[in-house]
Amino acid sequence: MAQQQQMQWQTIRDKKLADVASRIPSEWQISPSKLPPSTTANVLSVPRASGILTAREIHITEDYHARELLNTLHKRKFTAIEVATAFCKRAAIAQQLTNCITEPLFQLALDRASFLDAHLTRTGQPLGPLHGLPISVKDTFHIAGYDSSIGIASLCFSPAAANAPLVKLLLDAGAVIPCKTNVPQTLLALDSANNIFGRTLNPANRQQWTAGGSSGGEGVLVKMRGTVLGVGTDVGGSVRIPPMCNGIVGFKPSAGRIPTGGQGSAQLEAAGKVGMEFVVGPIARCLDDVGVFMEAVEWGRQWEREASVLPGRWWSGCDGVERPKREMVIGVVWRDGVTEPLPPVRRVLEDTVRMLKAKGIEIVYVDAKRFKDCQGLANKFFNVEGGNYTLDILEKTGEPLIPWLATRLKRKKPATVDRLRDLQAQKTQLQDDFLEIWKTADGRSIDAFICPVAPHPVPPIDRWNGVSYTASFVLLDYPAAVIPVRSVMEEDLEEDIDVEVLGGWDKVNRELWNKETIDRNAYLGSPLSIQVVGPRLQERKLWDAMVVIESAIKGSARTAKL
Amino acid sequence: MAQQQQMQWQTIRDKKLADVASRIPSEWQISPSKLPPSTTANVLSVPRASGILTAREIHITEDYHARELLNTLHKRKFTAIEVATAFCKRAAIAQQLTNCITEPLFQLALDRASFLDAHLTRTGQPLGPLHGLPISVKDTFHIAGYDSSIGIASLCFSPAAANAPLVKLLLDAGAVIPCKTNVPQTLLALDSANNIFGRTLNPANRQQWTAGGSSGGEGVLVKMRGTVLGVGTDVGGSVRIPPMCNGIVGFKPSAGRIPTGGQGSAQLEAAGKVGMEFVVGPIARCLDDVGVFMEAVEWGRQWEREASVLPGRWWSGCDGVERPKREMVIGVVWRDGVTEPLPPVRRVLEDTVRMLKAKGIEIVYVDAKRFKDCQGLANKFFNVEGGNYTLDILEKTGEPLIPWLATRLKRKKPATVDRLRDLQAQKTQLQDDFLEIWKTADGRSIDAFICPVAPHPVPPIDRWNGVSYTASFVLLDYPAAVIPVRSVMEEDLEEDIDVEVLGGWDKVNRELWNKETIDRNAYLGSPLSIQVVGPRLQERKLWDAMVVIESAIKGSARTAKL
Repeated sequence: MAQQQQMQWQTIRDKKLADVASRIPSEWQISPSKLPPSTTANVLSVPRASGILTAREIHITEDYHARELLNTLHKRKFTAIEVATAFCKRAAIAQQLTNCITEPLFQLALDRASFLDAHLTRTGQPLGPLHGLPISVKDTFHIAGYDSSIGIASLCFSPAAANAPLVKLLLDAGAVIPCKTNVPQTLLALDSANNIFGRTLNPANRQQWTAGGSSGGEGVLVKMRGTVLGVGTDVGGSVRIPPMCNGIVGFKPSAGRIPTGGQGSAQLEAAGKVGMEFVVGPIARCLDDVGVFMEAVEWGRQWEREASVLPGRWWSGCDGVERPKREMVIGVVWRDGVTEPLPPVRRVLEDTVRMLKAKGIEIVYVDAKRFKDCQGLANKFFNVEGGNYTLDILEKTGEPLIPWLATRLKRKKPATVDRLRDLQAQKTQLQDDFLEIWKTADGRSIDAFICPVAPHPVPPIDRWNGVSYTASFVLLDYPAAVIPVRSVMEEDLEEDIDVEVLGGWDKVNRELWNKETIDRNAYLGSPLSIQVVGPRLQERKLWDAMVVIESAIKGSARTAKL
Repeated sequence: MAQQQQMQWQTIRDKKLADVASRIPSEWQISPSKLPPSTTANVLSVPRASGILTAREIHITEDYHARELLNTLHKRKFTAIEVATAFCKRAAIAQQLTNCITEPLFQLALDRASFLDAHLTRTGQPLGPLHGLPISVKDTFHIAGYDSSIGIASLCFSPAAANAPLVKLLLDAGAVIPCKTNVPQTLLALDSANNIFGRTLNPANRQQWTAGGSSGGEGVLVKMRGTVLGVGTDVGGSVRIPPMCNGIVGFKPSAGRIPTGGQGSAQLEAAGKVGMEFVVGPIARCLDDVGVFMEAVEWGRQWEREASVLPGRWWSGCDGVERPKREMVIGVVWRDGVTEPLPPVRRVLEDTVRMLKAKGIEIVYVDAKRFKDCQGLANKFFNVEGGNYTLDILEKTGEPLIPWLATRLKRKKPATVDRLRDLQAQKTQLQDDFLEIWKTADGRSIDAFICPVAPHPVPPIDRWNGVSYTASFVLLDYPAAVIPVRSVMEEDLEEDIDVEVLGGWDKVNRELWNKETIDRNAYLGSPLSIQVVGPRLQERKLWDAMVVIESAIKGSARTAKL
């Protein structure tokens, strides 16, 4: 019986992989002579050299941000089919190098692009604000006729009946969806590996750096320019961790800002309503691309169709009266009290503070003592359901847990309603208490604060250590974004930590800096990012702060070369 | 033991009532010669005739809406102490006639008014947007140093340590709080009666009409002009039912719009997070007074101190681009499919439709088939916790359930987390499905719809029948308001119902119209109201619709005399 079940998931996997492979045209396969061996770490330059992309396709995929690309499409400098072809080809290449795609949707994308071209020719008007723009989505999003298997055997070959509301919105706005992208088994790991699609690799260092998760395929595809924008989900950091690993931008709004319906999951329906609730957010190569996405979501008026979506403009939570940017007050949270940031993480925050001060921005130090409580409470919410359904759907086909989860995911007794009520009471109290960090000592408002994304730089595969710096902002429902600052330099590697070990998470974290067991040089050149956090539902305030930060970073000699 | 316990709640009650009585100055006691006997039904004119109020005090309490009164205070035509004295005296009179107050706070109010006068004299500026305006609150709201006993013996003599956040906000804005007001035992009944404070009576007909609940004292006090505005809470209709019973205005916003923290309750902390969550709303004599309240709440920027409060303007959920009012589309929901409205209720809706059409407003008929499911699901959420804590705190002092609850409130087994998750999934689905009612057949938006508040006119004491017309909009989180249209006339009483009985609730409802067991003439002259409902978090759209409806009602010959 056990043997028979085990055959079952492997059979499903083989069939699924054959199906996926059949959807990548043979002329988009990298020729054996040009395909780097798996020992080649950095494959970022392979798409250009692959011989698959024309010069024009390289130009289309490399030289435009979203808004510029939309302009060229509106002006018919490029057709939608040209743009879609270029990005689909590049996505296919990215897949062969990093294993970032679950469902190639290339034919669907090209058909849609033809429709868009015909529409523009016929009406003289773009279909909507995203006319012709390639946007990929995490595997969780339902697309009619395709699986949302999230890499679990028992969920394969159960195609979705309808598009997720956000997918419908993006298509109505004119987006072209080239593919869906890879995730970790159960979505509960920080490396995007599963038994069906395998592991997604970091294109800047396939051997030594994790690509992150759970929106791991999305981060890599955006980095590889196989899409312009990616859509991820985030319950513990999944829209922010992959961008950190790839040196790009991730933007997690507060709940209610972006539609979340129509998702495949390893949990029962509405599980988030009694545990931790995920949000959806864009992954992009620059801040303005995030803006293009948020404007399109607002354009879609999804609150008329999905009750959990908040009505109104995406900056409706802000005051209306914007202060001049020079009067902005930015907070800094150096540490969460759970894991002490390793030196490169602390140093990139210091650099950012220095750059902001040089621009005349007021910086205040925020003592966020209660981050520790956020981490603890988030973990309790993660465990409310007991994880039994997740393990049930794996066991259906005899599918084992991936090694990283095998020691971490165990059946637990579900909480009682009274326990849940008590957790909710704690959460309300913690959310209320936390609000005090948004005021300076003299009572002025802090517009946003910066803090680490993680207590370590991009770690080796399967070594991500805890999500206290990211999950806390899901618990608090603060919009939080990741923005790259610079790369790890040699001088970042010299310093040791002189703070005492804070606890279990911190102890594991120190191992990532222990010269005796790890080669610190492996961090060299990896992206260093910061997290920027805004008050709840004030995404526009977060945005304004990011604009200031991005401009300070770009204006600095140290980071200008990036 | 049982005997000893029973003594206990009665002893507490006697002590509590003595304390309350001691806080009403003897010179504000109605003299025996002027105090109507309990057989006098309508006591609305007693305050004027009581001899307690001066002519100026009658003028202050009767001739101003909130905004006008604020103007006179700003211009020092009246001092805050004059206004506070007038309303406190009138509240004391109302209490003697209707038993609407739990905690008289007259001395506190007068002290606050003196402070406000001194502030205005010293600075030349009002303290805030509510400078000197009397606003009473439901007994649930914590006021430092006073009980939030909600009429339960074991909660008496446990004064609150701090003001509820909304109380603090109102005080900071300059409001004067004359008293807290009466509620039903456990807050789970629709007649405001409990073992400590007794029953609140309807001042327009103390014998025959219920005063409603659970914000029952608030409705009566506003009607009696013992306050300008009242603040209630609503989980099943409690901000709307008392205004219907008193022919005034109640306004229940969506969750997150008005701060809800700092409330006494017969439930454990955060019980609403796993069951039905209450919202806070104003009770007023006119629509503009509601606006004054909403503007003050927005002024308070409570989202900086209470995490559940949404940031931004109170109309931030609306589009910004308001259409001209003449283009407004108003829907009508005639029935919920659970209880068929009795003829007067149907007729007042018909009258309203006629008046709106006469003003050129487009009316569309909305077939809200799924209201029945809302009612069923709301009931399931009400039962998630099992009600055991509520019964525990009663039993502590041997306090019995009030007769109306004795047959209705029983201990139940709490739901499992999995059951709760399933209910949440049903709720999400229902909320999404419901959104279709906001579109006309040709796809235009409906701005608001009107429907009954209840399936019956103001019923006899303890005869309120079900909350499907009100609880549904808590489940759906739609802002919903009650607005009086006219009184019951003789011609409303003639018609019988020719629709078949729909079920248990409907059967009970017919008893309220059964000539053999009820005297229909008892309804004569009672206020007939309609409910106006807006899309979630679009309170401003609801407001605009109410302005149009109020103007149509005032402009009609039939209702002008009101």
